[in-house]
Amino acid sequence: MTAGMRFLKGHGTENDFVLLPDLDGTLDLTPELVRAVCNRRAGIGADGVLRIVPSELGHESVEHAEAAPFFMDYRNADGTIAEMCGNGVRVYAHYLVVAGLAEPGWMRLATRRGVLAVHVSREGEVTVDMGPAEIGDDVDVDGASATFVSMGNPHAVVPVPSVAALGELKTARLDLNVEYVEDVGPHVIRMRVHERGVGETRSCGTGACAAVVATMLRTGTPRGGLPYSVEVPGGHLAVSWREDGHVLLTGPAVLVAEGVLTPEWLESL
Amino acid sequence: MTAGMRFLKGHGTENDFVLLPDLDGTLDLTPELVRAVCNRRAGIGADGVLRIVPSELGHESVEHAEAAPFFMDYRNADGTIAEMCGNGVRVYAHYLVVAGLAEPGWMRLATRRGVLAVHVSREGEVTVDMGPAEIGDDVDVDGASATFVSMGNPHAVVPVPSVAALGELKTARLDLNVEYVEDVGPHVIRMRVHERGVGETRSCGTGACAAVVATMLRTGTPRGGLPYSVEVPGGHLAVSWREDGHVLLTGPAVLVAEGVLTPEWLESL
Repeated sequence: MTAGMRFLKGHGTENDFVLLPDLDGTLDLTPELVRAVCNRRAGIGADGVLRIVPSELGHESVEHAEAAPFFMDYRNADGTIAEMCGNGVRVYAHYLVVAGLAEPGWMRLATRRGVLAVHVSREGEVTVDMGPAEIGDDVDVDGASATFVSMGNPHAVVPVPSVAALGELKTARLDLNVEYVEDVGPHVIRMRVHERGVGETRSCGTGACAAVVATMLRTGTPRGGLPYSVEVPGGHLAVSWREDGHVLLTGPAVLVAEGVLTPEWLESL
Repeated sequence: MTAGMRFLKGHGTENDFVLLPDLDGTLDLTPELVRAVCNRRAGIGADGVLRIVPSELGHESVEHAEAAPFFMDYRNADGTIAEMCGNGVRVYAHYLVVAGLAEPGWMRLATRRGVLAVHVSREGEVTVDMGPAEIGDDVDVDGASATFVSMGNPHAVVPVPSVAALGELKTARLDLNVEYVEDVGPHVIRMRVHERGVGETRSCGTGACAAVVATMLRTGTPRGGLPYSVEVPGGHLAVSWREDGHVLLTGPAVLVAEGVLTPEWLESL
């Protein structure tokens, strides 16, 4: 029981991942393997897989190899390729530091959406520069007016008196990620999110960024001030909208377990 | 990242477990730890925990220590204590053989419901003597007549033309485990189960036993013949009703992964 495939499990505000270290770039990460690993009963179980691979071996990211030594190869639980995942970046970067593959502090990480600047503290708090927010025209969400914010992916932010009072989240806007946001206090909001193609989730990194941007626009709060605290069902995030338009997302990353997938299980796939 | 608490994850027909080896009987398995481990997003995720402990150190089972060297300390995902789990026994016994703690073949295993006879093959197929079936008077399940079978826990077995056609499983009989059974061919049935207090599950070991007993009674099949194959959503089981009234349940057990729960996660609880 000592051979097998190395793995770790981790989560960021209860968005959970299986990490597969692939430092020599030899792992054949098929959609079938991703689905089997993410199966919550017959596998380990996760929202997605993070393959840890040097950029120069990551095939799609050779152009980033000098700026960012590691490439985040993220896959959704259904086996499809995803560009980016705000919670996954935190877990990935935290792992690099814990494993001694990167130093704490600022680092650059290659993703399918380009190179990200990421800061890792020794305590597992990770800050990601999520890039600039783009504001669009207001959109209609089930009869309510919502602020449109693109964080690379499209968000519609709807202010509500109480997120708890919403009950089960449903929306006809299946083309957007929809954030319902409640003002809790100065620089504190509470959020629930309905992710496009998924339904309600425990946390959404880009959604928290969009929610804070929309709240600051609605309340006339200038950029560059104190960060906002965002309470999501899976935990707490902090978001800053900088004067230069970039949004910084800070949150926890936890490595729950590490070990090996057994040969008996791998052979059964 | 080398210290931490040892664990394995395994499943039997997609009823999944975290195994915690506790060979020196020192593990303080609190309800909080069980719930954290079984949390599918912030922990490992499982239907329950199997603590692997020598019978003489298992506190509740000292009387079994000579007959059965190991005690199956099973806990539900909500932290409560459970008497037995037919799928969990298979995973537990398979682990003992893989880990070199028992020889393949017949062994005795202590549980809160007494000592069980268990046979483990080298291929991961495990047979459990589930004890005698007790037949009761027919009961009403939502207007249909059902066969009552006790396997230590109460079951009501309802024959249906097609389990696929049932749609979402609902029943007003919350005091019983209800099995819906479809005849597929000679000695082959298909089953879906609504477990008391849980809802529909992918598999239920005692439910498969009850389903076969009720089918043999209904079709006038004598005891002691060929085993029945039972198709459940999570896989395949085989059930024999012996002439002496005992029911033997055979099914797969798979160890998916082994490793350690990290100190950072354990400290965060």
